[in-house]
Amino acid sequence: MNEPSLTGPVEVVGTGLLGTSIALACRRVGLDVLLTDASPEHLRTASGLGAGRSRTPGDRPQLVVVAVPPDHLGTEIARALADTDAVVTDVGSVKTGPLAAVADVAGVERYVGGHPMAGSERSGPLAATAALFDGRPWAVTPHATSRPDAIALVEELALLCGAVPVRLSPDEHDRAVARTSHVPHLLASLVAARLADAPEQHLALSGQGVRDVTRVAAGDPALYGQIVTANADAVLGLLGEVRGELDALIEAIASGNRDGLGALLAQGVAGTQAIPGKHGGPVRPTRSVFVSVPDHPGELARLFADAGASEVNIEDVHIDHDPGRPVGLVELLVDEARADHLIGSLESRGWVTHR
Amino acid sequence: MNEPSLTGPVEVVGTGLLGTSIALACRRVGLDVLLTDASPEHLRTASGLGAGRSRTPGDRPQLVVVAVPPDHLGTEIARALADTDAVVTDVGSVKTGPLAAVADVAGVERYVGGHPMAGSERSGPLAATAALFDGRPWAVTPHATSRPDAIALVEELALLCGAVPVRLSPDEHDRAVARTSHVPHLLASLVAARLADAPEQHLALSGQGVRDVTRVAAGDPALYGQIVTANADAVLGLLGEVRGELDALIEAIASGNRDGLGALLAQGVAGTQAIPGKHGGPVRPTRSVFVSVPDHPGELARLFADAGASEVNIEDVHIDHDPGRPVGLVELLVDEARADHLIGSLESRGWVTHR
Repeated sequence: MNEPSLTGPVEVVGTGLLGTSIALACRRVGLDVLLTDASPEHLRTASGLGAGRSRTPGDRPQLVVVAVPPDHLGTEIARALADTDAVVTDVGSVKTGPLAAVADVAGVERYVGGHPMAGSERSGPLAATAALFDGRPWAVTPHATSRPDAIALVEELALLCGAVPVRLSPDEHDRAVARTSHVPHLLASLVAARLADAPEQHLALSGQGVRDVTRVAAGDPALYGQIVTANADAVLGLLGEVRGELDALIEAIASGNRDGLGALLAQGVAGTQAIPGKHGGPVRPTRSVFVSVPDHPGELARLFADAGASEVNIEDVHIDHDPGRPVGLVELLVDEARADHLIGSLESRGWVTHR
Repeated sequence: MNEPSLTGPVEVVGTGLLGTSIALACRRVGLDVLLTDASPEHLRTASGLGAGRSRTPGDRPQLVVVAVPPDHLGTEIARALADTDAVVTDVGSVKTGPLAAVADVAGVERYVGGHPMAGSERSGPLAATAALFDGRPWAVTPHATSRPDAIALVEELALLCGAVPVRLSPDEHDRAVARTSHVPHLLASLVAARLADAPEQHLALSGQGVRDVTRVAAGDPALYGQIVTANADAVLGLLGEVRGELDALIEAIASGNRDGLGALLAQGVAGTQAIPGKHGGPVRPTRSVFVSVPDHPGELARLFADAGASEVNIEDVHIDHDPGRPVGLVELLVDEARADHLIGSLESRGWVTHR
């Protein structure tokens, strides 16, 4: 877009982590930001952080961003449509529910759902930052009667926040997050639950694999329960598929059917390759380079300085927690074609590496 | 132990990744290492790497390490017990099967199973390194009639390789790895399989969570199929539990039973907390600090240099792949009590951070 059409004021309803972060991003480019919150304390905190000012009766916002908990989305979106002639969006994790709640409200053509794929394990305005959305996808979910200028304005907000707008219908969005977020979380919880009462000695054999698989399962059960409940249809459809495949897996193992088991595992490999790579392009083949690193603050810096000097781009990093000695194993994922160069370069600087 | 009782020679049967790495670790401390392999090419490669020499008829090994594929373990352990009066160990991923295969062999009291929790996505002697086992758990699995001196010798091998011996019965070991490795892998495969034919637009919403959950599912289906089949009993027991919990989860979501759903998710949280922390101690509370980092080689080095200067120990690192722009988000996990100090320090050096 050439001319900015988002000129403000922007009203943010709900000054928690997401609302306050959006407000800060809008303030960063000089927009007038109006803040509304049922909690006067949150409102004072957000204002104090420079996120905006309280809304006054004469204000006429151009865009209202509803950033309240899932249970209150429908009510607050309807109120914003009734109280203003602004474009209205929200940041809820599930999109069909709030839309159904406002489908018959006058002015619904000014509503366009949104969902920035960003968050933090902390909440509240004090955790907010204008950088929260940097490089993250931001789902923009127009419905059948959303006005084109309203859609454009919401996409402009996403870009202004540093995010990458991804346009989907509300229904597609909900099926997408069921697949890429809700079901992975639920199955990670089932794996993690098997560890809860395992003997300590068994847990001593835990490696990086089980840590990765279960990491998301540490999230807040109450909040996650709300999200999953709100997306029950899409989640249940996929969980039904998973149950069918789990039965097939159990049958293949019980009957010693290695081909069947291999086919199920191969589907999983294909799935890991389907996840888009950095910059949205196809996944480039990477190779792991392991480096033994003494476990104190300066050593990682020295490693990355030496890796930087090798001019090999590090695609990802994992630090392997070790269960009994002061040496960590750092895994550097790099372009397959550059791995040998990195290893040679690090070894020449005294690092112990292996592939 | 005060006096080393492992004085060699050590025979390594099978010069793949694990066998050659163990041979290199033994050579590092000056032990005489004898190499045996059905493949003359692997044998030549391993010898060429300095991993040892071919075994000759007059050699009398003190310890034989059997490092062959799962399907051949029983045969090769039995052969080593018959051909030598040495202590015999192996490095297979499953321990009850090989033991059952040699339970009636003369000299079985000289056999003590082993399983170093280390590996690589590469295989063969060229990928080997003496550092492969640094800081990793190494399960040592004596059976009822294993001789105490044989157990001590195998634990000495694990220590010599830089690993941390963890003693378990063969049966306990197999149940432990079913829980901490095989079942997490299988469920990660089921999650990943759901992505294999998902629309590209849905996959665009993938975040770090689904990448973590599915990462292990990228492993070789044929090898993993062998391992799972060999541990069928323990794996099936746990998969049965998972199926029961999955049914309960589906029922809770379908009936809108938020308390039931919350309880299942809370079990998952407890499981993530049960995994031992770095150095085997309890998990210390960590906090995530996110930093926006331009995506070119020098920037990570600069970040870690600045983090190092803050004297805050980085517990783990994740690089968030972004789907459309040249800025990455790096997540640094640090001690909760040190997060604010790190943020202040990084911000004062010009980094954009958030929690």
